Amino acid sequence: MNDAVSIAAAIRAGKVSAVEVTKDALATIAARDREINAFTAVIAETALTDAARIDKEIAQGNNPGALAGVPFAVKNLFDVAGLTTLAGAKINAENPPATQDATLVARLKQAGAVLVGALNMDEYAYGFMTENAHYGATHNPHDLQRVTGGSSGGSAAAVAAGLVPLTLGSDTNGSIRVPAAFCGIFGLKPTYGRLSRAGVALFSTSFDHVGLFARSVRDIATAFDILQGEDDRDPVCTKRPPELCLPQIHEDISGIKFAIAGDYYTQGAEPEALLAVEQVARALNATEYVTLPESHRARAAAFVITASEGANLHINKLRSRPQDFDFATRDRFLAGALIPSQWYLQAQRFRRWYRDHVREIFQNVDIILAPTTPMVAPLIGQTTMVLDGQEIIIRPHLGLFTQPLSFIGLPVISVPIQRPNALPLGVQLIAAPYNEVLILKVASFLEAQGIVSAPVV
Amino acid sequence: MNDAVSIAAAIRAGKVSAVEVTKDALATIAARDREINAFTAVIAETALTDAARIDKEIAQGNNPGALAGVPFAVKNLFDVAGLTTLAGAKINAENPPATQDATLVARLKQAGAVLVGALNMDEYAYGFMTENAHYGATHNPHDLQRVTGGSSGGSAAAVAAGLVPLTLGSDTNGSIRVPAAFCGIFGLKPTYGRLSRAGVALFSTSFDHVGLFARSVRDIATAFDILQGEDDRDPVCTKRPPELCLPQIHEDISGIKFAIAGDYYTQGAEPEALLAVEQVARALNATEYVTLPESHRARAAAFVITASEGANLHINKLRSRPQDFDFATRDRFLAGALIPSQWYLQAQRFRRWYRDHVREIFQNVDIILAPTTPMVAPLIGQTTMVLDGQEIIIRPHLGLFTQPLSFIGLPVISVPIQRPNALPLGVQLIAAPYNEVLILKVASFLEAQGIVSAPVV
Repeated sequence: MNDAVSIAAAIRAGKVSAVEVTKDALATIAARDREINAFTAVIAETALTDAARIDKEIAQGNNPGALAGVPFAVKNLFDVAGLTTLAGAKINAENPPATQDATLVARLKQAGAVLVGALNMDEYAYGFMTENAHYGATHNPHDLQRVTGGSSGGSAAAVAAGLVPLTLGSDTNGSIRVPAAFCGIFGLKPTYGRLSRAGVALFSTSFDHVGLFARSVRDIATAFDILQGEDDRDPVCTKRPPELCLPQIHEDISGIKFAIAGDYYTQGAEPEALLAVEQVARALNATEYVTLPESHRARAAAFVITASEGANLHINKLRSRPQDFDFATRDRFLAGALIPSQWYLQAQRFRRWYRDHVREIFQNVDIILAPTTPMVAPLIGQTTMVLDGQEIIIRPHLGLFTQPLSFIGLPVISVPIQRPNALPLGVQLIAAPYNEVLILKVASFLEAQGIVSAPVV
Repeated sequence: MNDAVSIAAAIRAGKVSAVEVTKDALATIAARDREINAFTAVIAETALTDAARIDKEIAQGNNPGALAGVPFAVKNLFDVAGLTTLAGAKINAENPPATQDATLVARLKQAGAVLVGALNMDEYAYGFMTENAHYGATHNPHDLQRVTGGSSGGSAAAVAAGLVPLTLGSDTNGSIRVPAAFCGIFGLKPTYGRLSRAGVALFSTSFDHVGLFARSVRDIATAFDILQGEDDRDPVCTKRPPELCLPQIHEDISGIKFAIAGDYYTQGAEPEALLAVEQVARALNATEYVTLPESHRARAAAFVITASEGANLHINKLRSRPQDFDFATRDRFLAGALIPSQWYLQAQRFRRWYRDHVREIFQNVDIILAPTTPMVAPLIGQTTMVLDGQEIIIRPHLGLFTQPLSFIGLPVISVPIQRPNALPLGVQLIAAPYNEVLILKVASFLEAQGIVSAPVV
């Protein structure tokens, strides 16, 4: 399967019909998803009806949109009219179906994209593994024995395996970037508040971002441009006017000031994760290092706020039916419910301090490079590993390099490094708030140089 | 002593000099404040120097400002260059003097007002009594055996006793309105974020408002107009452009829709407090009642947030030297330090719900009337009283009618009802955010009708 932009072009040019493409996608899902387990719902009938309408539009000479006939799917915390929004939870399966699409789902459909289903995730988005106790683990297409990362694991696996070229996910502490890295694809977590969260089941309100996965930078830019813009249904989605990325991604990158994240971002990782950063740095002639101050505190504060806010959203169910939670998330939520308000307040106060200090760094630097994860995807069921001679617990460690960044809402793309006979790794391109254009320009340059790529596996 | 506007007019007209007025104020303070204890610092020398400069300006034919030569004083949590900002605390007495005036202090000075000193308060603004264990109780000028209310008790007493015509205070849960009511003067708590808090020692960051006390509505309007406007030093002080109140206060009030706060606001109070509201309602032809929903929850949530945020600001000192706190505030802060994050988060979530519901009420109503306090000023040292046949603890009960309103940042003035052979009471005029003009129009109408007034006692 090609990327979204080329599929849409072929459909618009009449080389293939939207219905054919959709049938193809449904067939691929039917064939491959039994072993991958990315989908929790496939809506074949609706998808085919939608695709037929696109074909009709084209036959009538109308423009059905930039993503005409492109199959896509969404993490199952996005509302899809007619489907129950699971958010990875058994408890939520009892809810009635959503009556309205989430804003971002509606926007992709309006641009001609065809929704084919909903995707697996960690329960209530609280995890980095997508080893869901209720709906099963999602398997990494690069090695079915391994995890996809999480919490948007289904979204990453579906793209990496070529089931669909485009998916939506959410990222609170790394939930887009970690699975993008493990599955060897592009994952964009935009600036906090830039994309509408209306119709999305929340996890930690002050951190939750929504974003997207794809196999080419132009797909990311095309979809992001469609998704951008204020939304009356989401008070957090600011009135910042859209700044279109797609027209800018092939421009010159000279003049962009790069730096490599030093200190904290060079520790607690396998050498190969740091090598991936070096490889990207070399391609960009990046040699300077910068220090993001107190990153370990930023991560600690992110844990405190996530656990407190997450627990608060589910407190009644935690009281009345704890046995119906995924055992992994339940214990974390319960711990979060016991955090004193002083810790929470202190974490929020530190956050302002940290944001101000990082903002100063971006006075002199445009893009900062950092590893996405400290290692490649671990095995399904694996809970510990030895790193630098020390045994560590894998799950929380996966957010080591992603948590301090979402903590202050910076826009980040994880770009995929493919390695012969080895699992993929990701590198984060980090910018100041609202500089998605810069990030995508650089990602596009790296893609054109062949440094990063996301082939179907 | 007359009101601020008439003093400034007399000084500008050359009928009296600013130095004479200042000397007069200093003499009155020296004579009367021994028994009232409103001032914690008097800066006679600086005041006389400032006054002499005003006189020189006038002699040179310059306009020294709308408050030329008007003596004023500020709650001792406002920074005054050269004075240590006590915030009512013994611990703070060890701090070096402030190097810069708080923004509001600087603005009044720029308008020609002459700062004569700093005023007593509850420690760290956490109280409704101004019975400060370190600096003594402030005595109510209407009855020296009684409290002024708090936490801005010094600010209210100084105006009521005619020591100065204008003072600044702060209001987190009622700390301007309660002492204004007990001392029989006007007290304005503007919309949250409308006046700059730069250079003000905070108590509970998400509730703290700064505001002012005076004995006439035109004084309040004049000073408020001077104080308005954004401030680079305060990120909370919004960029809302000033809307001048003074030119509008004598306008017609026909067309303004009034309502009386029902249910919650008619319970837990002495009959005389409700009679005061009725008296104002009659003068305004207000007959309709409205219900502010879940007011008891709003008050409970205000308690939780205040205690949590307040404790957080002082947590290190609470750990290292609890014995140096006022015993009354210490125990409340310690309790606040133990509140779980879930309570805090739930209170903040309820706050949004409550704000939205109250906003709807203001679609149909412009001004809501409510009692300021449930009773007149209690005796100094009195901790309980019998109300409706039940013994209640006085201190927390004093905020019964003020807490639910500051909880969502509504602008409120407490207007003074003078009663023959009885202590004064206050009535709150409450408007939607940023409608200070409306409030002051109505207060001015009531003043012109003789319903409310604030004579020197």
